[in-house]
Amino acid sequence: MTDQPVNPLRDPADRRLPRIAGPCGMVLFGVTGDLSRKKVMPAIYDLANRGLLPPGFSLVGFARRDWADEDFAQIVHDAVREHSRTEFREEVWNQLAEGFRFVQGDFDDDVAFDQLRRTIEELDQARGTRGNHAFYLAIPPTFFGAVAAQLKEHGLAEPNPGQWRRVVVEKPFGHDLASARELNDILGQVFDSGSIFRIDHYLGKETVQNILAMRFANNLFEPVWNSNYVDHVQITMAEDVGIGGRAGYYDGVGAARDVIQNHLLQLMALVAMEEPTAFDAESLRVEKLKVLSSITLPKRLDLSTARGQYAAGWAGGQQVIGFCEEDGIAKDSATETYAAVTLNVETRRWGGVPFYLRTGKRLGRRVTEVAIVFKKAPHQPFSATATEELGQNAIVIRVQPDEGMTIRFGSKVPGTAMEIRDVNMDFAYGGSFTEASPEAYERLILDVLLGDPPLFPRHEEVELSWKILDPILAHWAAKGRPEPYASGGWGPAGADKMLARDGRAWRRP
Amino acid sequence: MTDQPVNPLRDPADRRLPRIAGPCGMVLFGVTGDLSRKKVMPAIYDLANRGLLPPGFSLVGFARRDWADEDFAQIVHDAVREHSRTEFREEVWNQLAEGFRFVQGDFDDDVAFDQLRRTIEELDQARGTRGNHAFYLAIPPTFFGAVAAQLKEHGLAEPNPGQWRRVVVEKPFGHDLASARELNDILGQVFDSGSIFRIDHYLGKETVQNILAMRFANNLFEPVWNSNYVDHVQITMAEDVGIGGRAGYYDGVGAARDVIQNHLLQLMALVAMEEPTAFDAESLRVEKLKVLSSITLPKRLDLSTARGQYAAGWAGGQQVIGFCEEDGIAKDSATETYAAVTLNVETRRWGGVPFYLRTGKRLGRRVTEVAIVFKKAPHQPFSATATEELGQNAIVIRVQPDEGMTIRFGSKVPGTAMEIRDVNMDFAYGGSFTEASPEAYERLILDVLLGDPPLFPRHEEVELSWKILDPILAHWAAKGRPEPYASGGWGPAGADKMLARDGRAWRRP
Repeated sequence: MTDQPVNPLRDPADRRLPRIAGPCGMVLFGVTGDLSRKKVMPAIYDLANRGLLPPGFSLVGFARRDWADEDFAQIVHDAVREHSRTEFREEVWNQLAEGFRFVQGDFDDDVAFDQLRRTIEELDQARGTRGNHAFYLAIPPTFFGAVAAQLKEHGLAEPNPGQWRRVVVEKPFGHDLASARELNDILGQVFDSGSIFRIDHYLGKETVQNILAMRFANNLFEPVWNSNYVDHVQITMAEDVGIGGRAGYYDGVGAARDVIQNHLLQLMALVAMEEPTAFDAESLRVEKLKVLSSITLPKRLDLSTARGQYAAGWAGGQQVIGFCEEDGIAKDSATETYAAVTLNVETRRWGGVPFYLRTGKRLGRRVTEVAIVFKKAPHQPFSATATEELGQNAIVIRVQPDEGMTIRFGSKVPGTAMEIRDVNMDFAYGGSFTEASPEAYERLILDVLLGDPPLFPRHEEVELSWKILDPILAHWAAKGRPEPYASGGWGPAGADKMLARDGRAWRRP
Repeated sequence: MTDQPVNPLRDPADRRLPRIAGPCGMVLFGVTGDLSRKKVMPAIYDLANRGLLPPGFSLVGFARRDWADEDFAQIVHDAVREHSRTEFREEVWNQLAEGFRFVQGDFDDDVAFDQLRRTIEELDQARGTRGNHAFYLAIPPTFFGAVAAQLKEHGLAEPNPGQWRRVVVEKPFGHDLASARELNDILGQVFDSGSIFRIDHYLGKETVQNILAMRFANNLFEPVWNSNYVDHVQITMAEDVGIGGRAGYYDGVGAARDVIQNHLLQLMALVAMEEPTAFDAESLRVEKLKVLSSITLPKRLDLSTARGQYAAGWAGGQQVIGFCEEDGIAKDSATETYAAVTLNVETRRWGGVPFYLRTGKRLGRRVTEVAIVFKKAPHQPFSATATEELGQNAIVIRVQPDEGMTIRFGSKVPGTAMEIRDVNMDFAYGGSFTEASPEAYERLILDVLLGDPPLFPRHEEVELSWKILDPILAHWAAKGRPEPYASGGWGPAGADKMLARDGRAWRRP
């Protein structure tokens, strides 16, 4: 963890003290969107409730609506009451709400941005936010350029000495390599790279951070964490729902851009990377970049990838419509709702160990997991007995739900023969810690305010991820529509064939 | 598993079929003893109930009492009703009881042994036991010589071609190396070494057999199962009870002879041995002998061993008396009820890794476990955060109770700091298998009848175990009475000091 000069009051000798943000505020663009209401606002309240925000913390909403500060406060209040993780406490809320301001305007409205500047100055005086402000762009990326330009033009992006200004953006970080570079250039003209915080909320999840703890705080796993022992790795993010109301965003984007480019490749980087010299942003970035730049694609993309589109069917006991029947989706849409790819990592540690990444909507169960599947033991002294059904050892990191870890291994079946059968050894977060897991957004927003960026992907990582994905997307684009698959199942037959060609099979999580 | 010519009916292609004993019978000496009533008789019924005994199986009781066959059957019946693991079924019992016979006599009574021979011949005719008989000596070792001589003299020990005669003995296998050799010579004059079955009931336990399955059927554990990763090994057998009614046996024997010489050294051999070329008796024996003959003692036995004697106190909520106040124990007895030893294994795999073995009575809890304690990770990237409390990884095999396995490892504590804390990952036999675990005696008696000896220590192992223990016993004998320790605690202070000298501590299981 980096030092935290923003909070000189805490005892630097006790690193277990909660990290508390120093004086600061946040400006939220996209106040009425789902992201703001379901994630950002509740997380801010939860942080305040846990005592991790400075007393004078201020939140400025910026939107087109003709609202007074009170209307904005009501919006936040409703979002907090509905979505907060922690108990609602009147006194916490009241103190927090004193710092709420609302600025009405369009993104091209100079008057509004002038007003925003004055509001911030007023807060610096009245609430002691000391010129430290984060701009959270919870808006579509097409508007990033306009807002960034306005922030610059109205002197909002440049901090005075000893102060900070930061910008927070969410995925998608572009649509491909070229657009990602363009987007980065737009932000880069206004903010230096250390002030741009890209949120991949998966990195804020406890179980994802625990991948590093589990690997590097222990002596038991790292010795087998390499191609000598690992047969392959499966990284899965399965959703049981369809696209819901996200047709406008999803059509033309698809599963690979939506999930693999960011969440799954970041997960893979944490699983595959070498030990960082320290757990700080720069050291982590170095190692993640090494992994991402070592990833190659198999030559035959037709054999090593698979994609699908969910068809009508039954899911969760309900009859559901197919992707192309969803509101707002073209009847002949070629957007994939399932994507699976095979990736190689050309390093000494991982040579010859395929990483299989898959994600899909309307699958059998909502689950995100990383499975390290080990080679079979090189020799079985029990070969004369029933070991036909003996699978391969696996370490499964359950990212969500049922956060925890499982080790699958062979054990003797009770009885008078030496029969071996696979059993599971389990660790559950819920059963092991009394501490509740903070929401990913709590962790990440706090890190933005602390300026502590280890859990935020840098632009170089985004670029490398697109470099991996672009050839696959181009390959698919040339091949027409994806293979349909049954809702409530585990994806298209092509995905099963893809692994079967390698003599392997997907886990049924 | 060796081939089982005794049962040509089973399909050799399906090794998962229960192994069923071929035509045979058993002669039980020591009918009225605890061992017979609590273990042997119930195990025979349980095997019959599971369909693993041949239909004509016969059990001959031999004792001094003036009993008819029916009296003997009643004794067995009562023992079975009280101690059997499986449900009592009238039809199973009736069929089994038809094979019960009783022979009255002393061990020096030629008439009785003649009668025994005729009884066996009658059974071969009437019940089809075909000349295959095991002699179970559930009697004090002082009588082994007399009984063995009688069996020989009356033509009972020599099988006809194609038939078998076997003898089963229980620990103690002597009192030291010299007496163990003497005992072996006595049996060896009558039975060849392949027909002598020494029961160490620990080897019949599922969890003990699973040590081999766990190590060698998997690819996950063996890579770290060596001095590169293992810091030390702790093998514990703790009892919460005192000596009970065993004063006559226990005084002058003590904890080291009673438990370490057999159970704990056998456990250690399974934990430390190299992979056998096959899971048959001969291959296992080779590897166990290699380990046992590689064990050395530290030079300073005063620093590397500890012993104690339980004092009066409280255990399990009851006031209890000290060892020297027990009925039948001399007031100044120097017999230890707690023993702890440090052993080294001079092999490439284990050089520098101490094995700490301990056993004791009247300790805090009844538990037998093997703990492989790993070195700390060579580097901690999270050193800036709170890792002071981070322990060492451990794999703990719980032999009894709560049979299963636990892995202790460091995990991230939920929250916004990178704090690591030890957690447990657990596998429980009970929760993973619907199959009930057979009693150790079921497995071992069936193996005797099958002639399948992988789980029986051979005389060479007994000898090597005494060679390890004799110098320690001599050292203690020269030092007077053991250190007293509080009942209900975890043994004498000297045992804690013994590990503290190495910078380590006993687990509190």
